[in-house]
Amino acid sequence: MAGSSRCAASRRLQLPLLCLVFQGATAVLFAVFVRYNQETDPALWHWGNHSNVDNEFYFRYPSFQDVHVMVFVGFGFLMAFLQRYGFSSVGFTFLLAAFALQWSTLVQGFLHSFHGGNIHVGMESMINADFCAGAVLISFGAILGRTGPTQLLLMALLEVVLFGVNEFVLLSLLGVRDAGGSMTIHTFGAYFGLVLSRALYRPRLEKSKHRQGSVYHSDLFAMIGTIFLWLFWPSFNSAPTTLGDGPRRTALNTYYSLSASTLSTFALSALVGGDGRLDMVHIQNAALAGGVVVGTSGEMMLTPFGALAAGFLAGTVSTLGYKFFTPVLESKFKIQDTCGVHNLHGMPGILGALLGVLVAGLATHEAYGDDLESVFPLIAEGERSATSQALHQLLGLFVTLTFASVGAGLGGLLLKLPCLDSPPDSQCFEDQVYWEVPGEHEEEAQGPLRTEEPDTQA
Amino acid sequence: MAGSSRCAASRRLQLPLLCLVFQGATAVLFAVFVRYNQETDPALWHWGNHSNVDNEFYFRYPSFQDVHVMVFVGFGFLMAFLQRYGFSSVGFTFLLAAFALQWSTLVQGFLHSFHGGNIHVGMESMINADFCAGAVLISFGAILGRTGPTQLLLMALLEVVLFGVNEFVLLSLLGVRDAGGSMTIHTFGAYFGLVLSRALYRPRLEKSKHRQGSVYHSDLFAMIGTIFLWLFWPSFNSAPTTLGDGPRRTALNTYYSLSASTLSTFALSALVGGDGRLDMVHIQNAALAGGVVVGTSGEMMLTPFGALAAGFLAGTVSTLGYKFFTPVLESKFKIQDTCGVHNLHGMPGILGALLGVLVAGLATHEAYGDDLESVFPLIAEGERSATSQALHQLLGLFVTLTFASVGAGLGGLLLKLPCLDSPPDSQCFEDQVYWEVPGEHEEEAQGPLRTEEPDTQA
Amino acid sequence: MAGSSRCAASRRLQLPLLCLVFQGATAVLFAVFVRYNQETDPALWHWGNHSNVDNEFYFRYPSFQDVHVMVFVGFGFLMAFLQRYGFSSVGFTFLLAAFALQWSTLVQGFLHSFHGGNIHVGMESMINADFCAGAVLISFGAILGRTGPTQLLLMALLEVVLFGVNEFVLLSLLGVRDAGGSMTIHTFGAYFGLVLSRALYRPRLEKSKHRQGSVYHSDLFAMIGTIFLWLFWPSFNSAPTTLGDGPRRTALNTYYSLSASTLSTFALSALVGGDGRLDMVHIQNAALAGGVVVGTSGEMMLTPFGALAAGFLAGTVSTLGYKFFTPVLESKFKIQDTCGVHNLHGMPGILGALLGVLVAGLATHEAYGDDLESVFPLIAEGERSATSQALHQLLGLFVTLTFASVGAGLGGLLLKLPCLDSPPDSQCFEDQVYWEVPGEHEEEAQGPLRTEEPDTQA
Repeated sequence: MAGSSRCAASRRLQLPLLCLVFQGATAVLFAVFVRYNQETDPALWHWGNHSNVDNEFYFRYPSFQDVHVMVFVGFGFLMAFLQRYGFSSVGFTFLLAAFALQWSTLVQGFLHSFHGGNIHVGMESMINADFCAGAVLISFGAILGRTGPTQLLLMALLEVVLFGVNEFVLLSLLGVRDAGGSMTIHTFGAYFGLVLSRALYRPRLEKSKHRQGSVYHSDLFAMIGTIFLWLFWPSFNSAPTTLGDGPRRTALNTYYSLSASTLSTFALSALVGGDGRLDMVHIQNAALAGGVVVGTSGEMMLTPFGALAAGFLAGTVSTLGYKFFTPVLESKFKIQDTCGVHNLHGMPGILGALLGVLVAGLATHEAYGDDLESVFPLIAEGERSATSQALHQLLGLFVTLTFASVGAGLGGLLLKLPCLDSPPDSQCFEDQVYWEVPGEHEEEAQGPLRTEEPDTQA
Repeated sequence: MAGSSRCAASRRLQLPLLCLVFQGATAVLFAVFVRYNQETDPALWHWGNHSNVDNEFYFRYPSFQDVHVMVFVGFGFLMAFLQRYGFSSVGFTFLLAAFALQWSTLVQGFLHSFHGGNIHVGMESMINADFCAGAVLISFGAILGRTGPTQLLLMALLEVVLFGVNEFVLLSLLGVRDAGGSMTIHTFGAYFGLVLSRALYRPRLEKSKHRQGSVYHSDLFAMIGTIFLWLFWPSFNSAPTTLGDGPRRTALNTYYSLSASTLSTFALSALVGGDGRLDMVHIQNAALAGGVVVGTSGEMMLTPFGALAAGFLAGTVSTLGYKFFTPVLESKFKIQDTCGVHNLHGMPGILGALLGVLVAGLATHEAYGDDLESVFPLIAEGERSATSQALHQLLGLFVTLTFASVGAGLGGLLLKLPCLDSPPDSQCFEDQVYWEVPGEHEEEAQGPLRTEEPDTQA
Repeated sequence: MAGSSRCAASRRLQLPLLCLVFQGATAVLFAVFVRYNQETDPALWHWGNHSNVDNEFYFRYPSFQDVHVMVFVGFGFLMAFLQRYGFSSVGFTFLLAAFALQWSTLVQGFLHSFHGGNIHVGMESMINADFCAGAVLISFGAILGRTGPTQLLLMALLEVVLFGVNEFVLLSLLGVRDAGGSMTIHTFGAYFGLVLSRALYRPRLEKSKHRQGSVYHSDLFAMIGTIFLWLFWPSFNSAPTTLGDGPRRTALNTYYSLSASTLSTFALSALVGGDGRLDMVHIQNAALAGGVVVGTSGEMMLTPFGALAAGFLAGTVSTLGYKFFTPVLESKFKIQDTCGVHNLHGMPGILGALLGVLVAGLATHEAYGDDLESVFPLIAEGERSATSQALHQLLGLFVTLTFASVGAGLGGLLLKLPCLDSPPDSQCFEDQVYWEVPGEHEEEAQGPLRTEEPDTQA
């Protein structure tokens, strides 16, 4: 009893303290290490010809904004499908991403742009930080509703580091290509979240079962997330590609792939649904699998047909996963997966990595022309054959799965520390544990409870 | 009875089969015909000077994204005003547009960019495909709630072809100018939908009357659609214009026209409303008429005043249409128009076409300078007088109305094929026919489990 | 009684007449004065080298669109948190902003771009007009729910003029730098609204108290506003900066500042909340204070650390303001502040102005290099020392506060004219006064009232 009441007192202060400590620490690290890069620092700017740098900016800034919308609006609202967890879905997405982008600016900065004792930041660091935040939010989707904000911040603290290291190993050490992050973002984020979910397995979650579904309007809020993710995915996959034909081809491939995954999702959802009815869960999620599956190969010579075929396959696998595999994942593997990230990010991420292996293995000088230099620099420079590149891509997938699993194992230990703000089994998927929640309907809101509230609503 | 039960069985498989067949067929056609264009194909890229091509891209890609948002978020949520049809509005928009953009890539490709046996795709084909999807969604608005997804896909199959042919006749054969599609998109889409609605007339629709209205929050979801359409309409109208002063002028004209249609809509809505109250239907729809009305003339020398006047007129006509004309359309012409597309797209589209006739007829070398070449190439090259251009514009309107009407007549035959998934009169405007629908409120969703609630609400 | 019934009749016509008169007057002024500028007019375009002008466009147009989204989606939905005032929040935002952008095009045109008897409009005038609309909407937030649309249009009529004059005094006469408008937009808009709210003080507002809170889904709609404001604030602050390193640095600073204000808001909200629970009001608003606080200094050499520190401070002050200062503002100063604009725009705006004083005072040739010319032209040209610039910045803050207060005093007289459409104390925060409102739930919507409605809803 004494322990539990000490926990209660500590719980009240955990979130404020963690936010303040994390923000204080990043601020100090920023003060010591972070500097504007050459394109952002006024004293370094007005020298030489800037037309190439400007061209980058005209493309990257709108791309960045699209990615930014995906991370905060897309992921946040997509997870708002739960009937009583909308505040947490949108709010914790906001908190986690705001922390992750600062923290990953530091981690990625140390790994990728640390020169002369300083990290140099600019447009690219903003895009990369948002990408990392995306991976953290994918993991959040797996454990959505079963963890408190303190636990989530601790998860982000760890995951951002592992994301950075894994990405560094893949892109810088192994020379793997993965512009849209089928491996580094989707596969990593999904399996990190799933292994973490295994570590946090709750055998008595049926106590909260009545809150695991949606209500009519929460499904429409979720569709806001879905549609913005779908719309801006071409920007997501093309944001880090080399200027020229690359961004165009990547955007086009992603656009086709997504349109095909949408059709296959509707087809399969109606096919496996009761009475031929469509299931909103499939539409909200599986229709997006086309964006995941071309994350690696979108910048390559996938061809428009290849993009359609890949998207079609991804939508199919993802919808079938929701219907048949998610229940097995819980009953056999003790992995609870609230948003079905295994279906949207896990399996399509692995498929996307394998597609990358295939398309990289087929790369020829003829097909890519001078552009081979930007898409496969190591092949262009003669350091690797296409087959060798393909094998490196495959190795990248295994490295990613290893980092994600081992990292999430550590994460499980961290998130099971005593006294953290994990909700009891009967209060999962419930905003009221962490938020002041008004009545659902105006009638309720007008009741006697109002007397307590003037100072909070101001 | 036997026929009806055979129908029921077939209905269950219609949507999956149609999606799979359509997706399979487009994929095969893509494999055979569709290739990256010169700016998107790596092997064709690194030759020559790309600065102009790049400039196009810096403008077109953000424009494309804005148009993309309008099509999927704008149209989808605008139609979500119905209290029990939000899943279908947003979901079928998603399905229809995803199919239409693939199919129109093929149709428009055969008509506009078929060289050496191949269709060449890139940024322009993406914008054009989204435009065509917009026309399909306008037609969807007319019959919203009274057709099933199979019927809608069949409509899209036909309408995309007719849209492409009509556009080809106008732009390529007649030399009509119509950048923002007052004719090719709005007039065509609206009258196609309205004639189709006539063909599908339901005399006993009052059985579903109680579901034809909105509820409080569904109107707010619809406002998401309205506002995003309103905001990005300057990008819509300017997306296909020639780089230079054109996009700027088009965006500016559209911005002014929309702001004026907003004021006239508020004025008229309060004027004709009971007790001077505003009507959400008007605000959600008629305020957008300013974008439709400058679709043709936005790139021309409309002048800022002209844009305001046009927008003002369009908002007025549209609001009055909702109040006085829509009921007549149903009672006298047997045309049911769920979203009032006649008021938002039909009449303002025709007005826009006529405004284009007027402004084209006033074109002079003096007013346009060297830019006459991009706005009216045939006048600049001396092949046509301004008056002749104006007459061609007028002819374009009649051609469009003809294609839309005849095409929709065919469409009516197609959609009345036996055994399609048309809802019964008593189940129109109801998601539950096609979707698994959760309870509206958490109480319903929780059912008897509710008894456990006390500890969660504590 | 006779007077009151005359008022009732007049009230019914006020809004339509005011909209028509305002739109008519702006249209006439547009006809007389407004012309396309050189980049927008076809006859003036095809001369000389346009690469710089084009570069501006590739950056400004996407920036403009982001600002546009903030004004209409951001402000509109942010204010939709009230349970029964969503139509008015989103709808009146739409109306006010549509009028303000036309009217401010004229006012700012007379002050800034009036040459040869004409106002020249283009991309910059669009951005500036949207900025001015933003200030009007901030003031709207202070008096939200306690004024009718006629009153709001009158407020906009006055405020746009004062905004223009104040901005002209600051930027053109005093040489103050304020790219993101900590002073000209946020401080001005907030104190204009607060002083106006004082003038319209309602001692018996507790009659509407039960409608001042949110309901569950209205808070989610408000989060749409919050997130879009948060996402596009980097574009807002950088939109008017000089092309080159300026936009990059401003965007980066704003991005960091916002991420820090998000963390400090979560920390403080949980710290001061009952039982450590988070308060949606704080998250929806205070998390945005980081964008306000770097409005002035974002384009300067704030450094990444400085941006984090500023954002952290702003989030803290803003959250504490909501908790402790808003009640005092009402009880002691008789200022009712529905959205807490004092906390989100007022105090952070003043802090931002002071931060600008500090950072300007530290400006050196060494730190800014050649770019000093764009950030502090008067220092670069040797007309001012950094200290003098700092003092001018401070003077700018006092000028702004004076204009806002005196102007809002006048505004109070204007809005208290007899017979305007102010709601009675018992009907504040209630859409039904101004809108046809459907039932909240479908069950209600199916009630007997429905029989009157088919022809309007069509």
